[in-house]
Amino acid sequence: MAEVFRRDKRVRFHHCDPAGIVFYPHYFVLFHELMEDWFTEALGEDYAAFVRGGHGLPAVKVECQFLAPNPVGDVIAFELTLARLGTSSITMRIVGRARGLECVRATVVAVHSSLNPLKSVAIPERLRAAMERFVKG
Amino acid sequence: MAEVFRRDKRVRFHHCDPAGIVFYPHYFVLFHELMEDWFTEALGEDYAAFVRGGHGLPAVKVECQFLAPNPVGDVIAFELTLARLGTSSITMRIVGRARGLECVRATVVAVHSSLNPLKSVAIPERLRAAMERFVKG
Amino acid sequence: MAEVFRRDKRVRFHHCDPAGIVFYPHYFVLFHELMEDWFTEALGEDYAAFVRGGHGLPAVKVECQFLAPNPVGDVIAFELTLARLGTSSITMRIVGRARGLECVRATVVAVHSSLNPLKSVAIPERLRAAMERFVKG
Amino acid sequence: MAEVFRRDKRVRFHHCDPAGIVFYPHYFVLFHELMEDWFTEALGEDYAAFVRGGHGLPAVKVECQFLAPNPVGDVIAFELTLARLGTSSITMRIVGRARGLECVRATVVAVHSSLNPLKSVAIPERLRAAMERFVKG
Repeated sequence: MAEVFRRDKRVRFHHCDPAGIVFYPHYFVLFHELMEDWFTEALGEDYAAFVRGGHGLPAVKVECQFLAPNPVGDVIAFELTLARLGTSSITMRIVGRARGLECVRATVVAVHSSLNPLKSVAIPERLRAAMERFVKG
Repeated sequence: MAEVFRRDKRVRFHHCDPAGIVFYPHYFVLFHELMEDWFTEALGEDYAAFVRGGHGLPAVKVECQFLAPNPVGDVIAFELTLARLGTSSITMRIVGRARGLECVRATVVAVHSSLNPLKSVAIPERLRAAMERFVKG
Repeated sequence: MAEVFRRDKRVRFHHCDPAGIVFYPHYFVLFHELMEDWFTEALGEDYAAFVRGGHGLPAVKVECQFLAPNPVGDVIAFELTLARLGTSSITMRIVGRARGLECVRATVVAVHSSLNPLKSVAIPERLRAAMERFVKG
Repeated sequence: MAEVFRRDKRVRFHHCDPAGIVFYPHYFVLFHELMEDWFTEALGEDYAAFVRGGHGLPAVKVECQFLAPNPVGDVIAFELTLARLGTSSITMRIVGRARGLECVRATVVAVHSSLNPLKSVAIPERLRAAMERFVKG
């Protein structure tokens, strides 16, 4: 039974466009925040230290459906699980709900990488073990 | 034979992350700029007037592959065609190349909408005719 | 003795530039979040409802000193007080500290406005009374 | 007689907030683009190469007045001159006009720096000579 990482994010004024709703690229910024929270709070890997140590998680593929618009003030309840864990790739499934309604659903494939120079690096064993709890079979 | 809308976009400092490359949500901002340019310069529909007139093109679905990183200074040569034109939906295919290399490839489905309240609206005939030239059979 | 509104903000990956520190326009985004929090949590005026009601607080003047860089992971402890409260203008003083160090210091003048059309509107009495507690004499 | 660096910037959908006008932090992003253009096009110093070479221009102080709102589609005609050129500091004056109206006026103090570690570095002689033409006596 997979664990689910949950975190709420509030829709801010700066996320919103002239229609008064989240401009869609900002959802990906929120997904990244969610991943940072997951690292720091659930995986026992401080995300900031991870970046300062020369690592990163560039996305290589994303798929996203925007199912209902989110106006300023919405609190989006996000859930993150893993669909797949490769040698260095991490396939995240993210679902967001606001006011009881599913508003966004995404798959983001990121690659565990060293940044300078940029190249994929196998996920270290301790981090992999922590991640495996979130893989939804 | 479909037309292709082409426009170059320069990678700016503000697009880039601590790895010195475009932070991926910014690609979607660039795709939106590309769509605005396409409206104004190729479809004969001033995008700003379109928005001021209470219309918009919220995305309902995106798929994107990030094939090669783009550092600051890269000029990305974007190409936009249409994969499908529905009653109100517009399925755009966007390919970006920099330094001779394909770096990003996306499908963005947007819906021709009125914004207040937000609801889909059939693409008007004149705009549809202009868009049809870009549908890749 | 003026009250001080305090809120911590974490520096996220998306705030940071190729130097690995907050790109300075993002400080203003954080100031805006701080102001939103102040409205909702300290003034008893839900900021989202305020915006949906056709009001806003466009900035007319800002002054800001960036005293020390903030890398990803920094938690900035912000303090907000008011330097002046006009008929419709609100002069905020914002100080941010991280790791015991003052990193940013700003004055932001915003104007209580209706948005459609955009024009200044006198701050209503109840909101003014709530704000006055934060004026630093 | 000082030279003036001029460049037009179009207000994009992504710059605009629920009031349909530029959200003020985005003006600073536009100022940064203007500075990048000035480097590359007027100073003979490719800005991207400058960053890749480990240099940057972090802001230490900004003052800005927002004089008139800019809706999507506005073309802002920016002018950049220098108020002062220190050993490593550069004091830029930036004025923006749209539809014949001054809309934004700013002073931005940036410091010529090496980025890793971050510290100020004297402006090299060739770059200083190029900049001096823009100092308004």
